[in-house]
Amino acid sequence: MELYSGHINKLIEQFAKLPGVGSKSAQRLALHVINMPPEHVERFAQIMVDARKNIHYCKTCCTLADKEFCPICANPKRDHTTIMIVENIRDLAAYEKTGKYEGVYHVLHGAISPMLGIGPNDIRLKELVKRLEDDISEVIIATNSSLEGETTAMYISKLIKPTGVKVTRIASGVPVGGDLECIDEMTLLRALEGRTEL
Amino acid sequence: MELYSGHINKLIEQFAKLPGVGSKSAQRLALHVINMPPEHVERFAQIMVDARKNIHYCKTCCTLADKEFCPICANPKRDHTTIMIVENIRDLAAYEKTGKYEGVYHVLHGAISPMLGIGPNDIRLKELVKRLEDDISEVIIATNSSLEGETTAMYISKLIKPTGVKVTRIASGVPVGGDLECIDEMTLLRALEGRTEL
Repeated sequence: MELYSGHINKLIEQFAKLPGVGSKSAQRLALHVINMPPEHVERFAQIMVDARKNIHYCKTCCTLADKEFCPICANPKRDHTTIMIVENIRDLAAYEKTGKYEGVYHVLHGAISPMLGIGPNDIRLKELVKRLEDDISEVIIATNSSLEGETTAMYISKLIKPTGVKVTRIASGVPVGGDLECIDEMTLLRALEGRTEL
Repeated sequence: MELYSGHINKLIEQFAKLPGVGSKSAQRLALHVINMPPEHVERFAQIMVDARKNIHYCKTCCTLADKEFCPICANPKRDHTTIMIVENIRDLAAYEKTGKYEGVYHVLHGAISPMLGIGPNDIRLKELVKRLEDDISEVIIATNSSLEGETTAMYISKLIKPTGVKVTRIASGVPVGGDLECIDEMTLLRALEGRTEL
């Protein structure tokens, strides 16, 4: 908008490029930054640049890390024979928050999607195959239960089975606390198919 | 979260301090920045610092500006005898977008709120009073129709009336396209009180 100063417009533009930030939010965020103490703004900017500069992918599981290996892969208390495969770091974070999973992870950074032209070579599968040379007892596929996630799960399972390593898939079904009448048909059918004996 | 690297955690923290950004959004934004090309991140950071450093308040209307005066106050085609008082720059932007208002503005940067301890001296009223020494034909009060906005409007009207300048308040009522049954009682009563003859 012409009515803002050039500096503010540029800043609004930058915020608007971030995911999930519309033009109104970008405006609010930019005006908030303008009203922050200058030293806080400089600190924010520095942290942003530093984070981008100093980040690496963990050499084992491909998650983001400050050092060569991430804290999970570097932790001898974790079960390094069990690998959970996730699409991205937020999914890893979600499982890590449960505090119950003791194995390690492998982050694919995406999922196979013929629609978007993302093939097996575009996600971190080579790195996964290399890890199977070590002593691995189980690979748990925890990709999303979307079309892409399921395609990726199928692909990986076919890839790993010949090696003799046990491959499992996390259960799909009714969310805990979910009200049956509010749940879509696909999920209800999945829950039925996946029923277990009590 | 411990599972992220220190650099990412710091960046998430920074984003989470912004208004309307929850912890999940902050995580998403930080991970997005991490995946941006480094030169884009540096550009974003630089724009942020520059904007904060180079911004001034317009010497006339107190809005944010690159120069001593904002583009609106510097525009000789605007009607400089009509001043619209708004609480903040976003409100100014909203009226400016209508493209129909030809006068100038005065940005208070807040509203009087005894609850929050914001008094008349905490908003840009001194600057407003000074402007009344010039040839002003009308002051339109466009503060929000909230408790704070109304309090501020009342205060300003009492402040200006003795000077003989015409003071008006924007109308409060049913929004255009609004469905009567969905509108709160206060608004309905306001609309009734403010009815005009056809």
